[in-house]
Amino acid sequence: MQNQKIAINGKRLEETIERFADFGRTDNNGVTRLALSDEDVGSRNYLVECCEALGLHVTKDDLGNQYARFEGSDPKADPVYVGSHLDSVKKGGRYDGALGVIAALEVIRTMIDYSIQPKRPIILVNFTNEEGARFEPSMMSSGVLSGKFNQEEMNEKRDQNGVTFLEALKESGYEGKADERLTNGKAFLELHIEQGPVLEQEEITIGAVECVVGMVCYEIEVLGDSNHAGTTPMAMRDDALFTAVDTIQSLRNRLDQLDERLVYTIGRIEASPNIHTVIPNRIVFSLEARHQDEEIIDKVEQIIHSFKERNRIEPKRLWQRDTVWFDSAVVKVVEEASKQLGTTHRRMVSGAGHDAQFIASMMPTAMIFVPSLRGKSHSEDEYTSPKDCIAGVNVLFEAVSTLSQE
Amino acid sequence: MQNQKIAINGKRLEETIERFADFGRTDNNGVTRLALSDEDVGSRNYLVECCEALGLHVTKDDLGNQYARFEGSDPKADPVYVGSHLDSVKKGGRYDGALGVIAALEVIRTMIDYSIQPKRPIILVNFTNEEGARFEPSMMSSGVLSGKFNQEEMNEKRDQNGVTFLEALKESGYEGKADERLTNGKAFLELHIEQGPVLEQEEITIGAVECVVGMVCYEIEVLGDSNHAGTTPMAMRDDALFTAVDTIQSLRNRLDQLDERLVYTIGRIEASPNIHTVIPNRIVFSLEARHQDEEIIDKVEQIIHSFKERNRIEPKRLWQRDTVWFDSAVVKVVEEASKQLGTTHRRMVSGAGHDAQFIASMMPTAMIFVPSLRGKSHSEDEYTSPKDCIAGVNVLFEAVSTLSQE
Repeated sequence: MQNQKIAINGKRLEETIERFADFGRTDNNGVTRLALSDEDVGSRNYLVECCEALGLHVTKDDLGNQYARFEGSDPKADPVYVGSHLDSVKKGGRYDGALGVIAALEVIRTMIDYSIQPKRPIILVNFTNEEGARFEPSMMSSGVLSGKFNQEEMNEKRDQNGVTFLEALKESGYEGKADERLTNGKAFLELHIEQGPVLEQEEITIGAVECVVGMVCYEIEVLGDSNHAGTTPMAMRDDALFTAVDTIQSLRNRLDQLDERLVYTIGRIEASPNIHTVIPNRIVFSLEARHQDEEIIDKVEQIIHSFKERNRIEPKRLWQRDTVWFDSAVVKVVEEASKQLGTTHRRMVSGAGHDAQFIASMMPTAMIFVPSLRGKSHSEDEYTSPKDCIAGVNVLFEAVSTLSQE
Repeated sequence: MQNQKIAINGKRLEETIERFADFGRTDNNGVTRLALSDEDVGSRNYLVECCEALGLHVTKDDLGNQYARFEGSDPKADPVYVGSHLDSVKKGGRYDGALGVIAALEVIRTMIDYSIQPKRPIILVNFTNEEGARFEPSMMSSGVLSGKFNQEEMNEKRDQNGVTFLEALKESGYEGKADERLTNGKAFLELHIEQGPVLEQEEITIGAVECVVGMVCYEIEVLGDSNHAGTTPMAMRDDALFTAVDTIQSLRNRLDQLDERLVYTIGRIEASPNIHTVIPNRIVFSLEARHQDEEIIDKVEQIIHSFKERNRIEPKRLWQRDTVWFDSAVVKVVEEASKQLGTTHRRMVSGAGHDAQFIASMMPTAMIFVPSLRGKSHSEDEYTSPKDCIAGVNVLFEAVSTLSQE
């Protein structure tokens, strides 16, 4: 455990965040840095430059994931991996992903500042194409690393211009070798912005993330009978929109009683024929729900299915994913680090997906969240204050120090 | 008034309906006969052929409206106009419009069968482009005749292929002269399918139509705040979809208390960004309401406006049209004709627009409705039984006989 006088360099951290934001900076001071684009390659090159300046050994694997190794006193000990991703969505912010990579860099820089050599090697990681904004799906390369996704299939994924992932990877110059892939880690830690409003609202600086919550996504089709809007008395209508609205209200009433931690969203709704003078004969809407407990998700599904009516209301499950629980010992290390530094903290769940949820199947993993202003992410309005960034990276420094000495 | 033994020729009527349905017949036994298309021109040519075979004088005006004059014993008396339109929507039915033209033909044929010469001339009319399915707006040429629409503007309206109305009119060979336009009528009568379910449900054969109801159409915009569907607790959301659904329910509750004859429709609804993982920040939906009494429409508008919330719920009126009342004497003639023939009948309103609503500003006008199976129209499923068609044309015959003798 480090002495409390050791602290990361806040000014350097801020400057580095700004420096990375130059790669793909938008007019509104956001960032567009799609995976393996020129902007992404620019930020990757700059990362290599920073790491090599520190004397780190920099490598890349066959998925374009970047690694920078800060050697430990026991080079054969399982390393501690720390990082996130540099790619962004279109018109995203400068924190989502990038902050976690820059934080790892700052942790290593600080160790070098204080001439600290950890027992275990510390390896900074930048995962390729976490956002899935250029090549679907998201978390693509951590998905391949963990065996969740098939590499051949991923290689053939195309962007809007028809370019495949593999073509873009080769073109970027960041295609490395499979035997450079991360493996046998002591732990993986990812610092990330919360992307939600909880920490800000509760005025807490650190989230020690216990899990990425499971979710289920349905599409619900409601059928009615199209008729002329002017000639059909109300009592003789079978209006799919009114049935859909009634169904949504009943669903809300029942779902709201389940658990206050449940979140559910009707993000998509479409009417047919969608003409103002015609009574709709079909409404389709999505309903996705997230909760850490399988039991609650089961209840959500039971509720949804209870609305099924032959030839009238038809729910269809599009997909689901189970909750991924992080390693309790690593979560505890994050909590202890916060306590040690006197930083306000709470355990929390992640409602969004992250590379860490796939890496969790390969090694003990946890995440550290820092506050997002008004919960905004995937937006040029994304913002985390320098104070919160610095506090988060100090906690990360403490936690990595602990783990790398174990 | 005709002796009750005189009746139209039902078999001939049925055959003529089938014969006209050949022009644009679809695979599902519907009709696609867009205004001034080859199919429409085919049906127009056939109409001319039928009328000339009866010795009628056939003319066309500068809008392509067709007239066939059955001379009266007093050729200088104001004529009785009878008709509707031969054009259809895409994949429409064989009754909407065509039945009214064929009915007028059958009325004249029957008079000739029985060697009846009316006092006043009887003029069959086929209005051009009632549906507006090829060239918007609907009721185009009756709109020009009545001075509601500007002819130069209408001439420039284009179809999907960029062809203007005037080009199509010239190409069709049906461009005639302005001095052939209908004028100085004693009355205009239009027989039409109901396009709603009321007559069928009440098992009544004839609707004596009193008016075309007024309407108002709004677009209502509901704003919220987009956030990540996974990371934003329910209590911290400002979900535009949920606000919209709550608004729709409250609107329904209040509108349903106004008057049972009020009809209103939310035909169009759109969400932004319409992605299943993002809380919607904007919902736009249409709300159109129809009722014969201005007072009720005013109340509808007051209710809609009462939901206005700055930066949250914004109703915008897109358009309105006033109720068009038909001539009470002509409506009474239709009722009397039904009574005379022992045909079940009721007064009713038209929720849909018709050429008659424009012609009503030029001469005493009324409409006769016959039942529509399940209220279907603008659909290949459109159907009116031969029995109802025959009954409707017999009532039309009686009414035209009465009006042409006055």
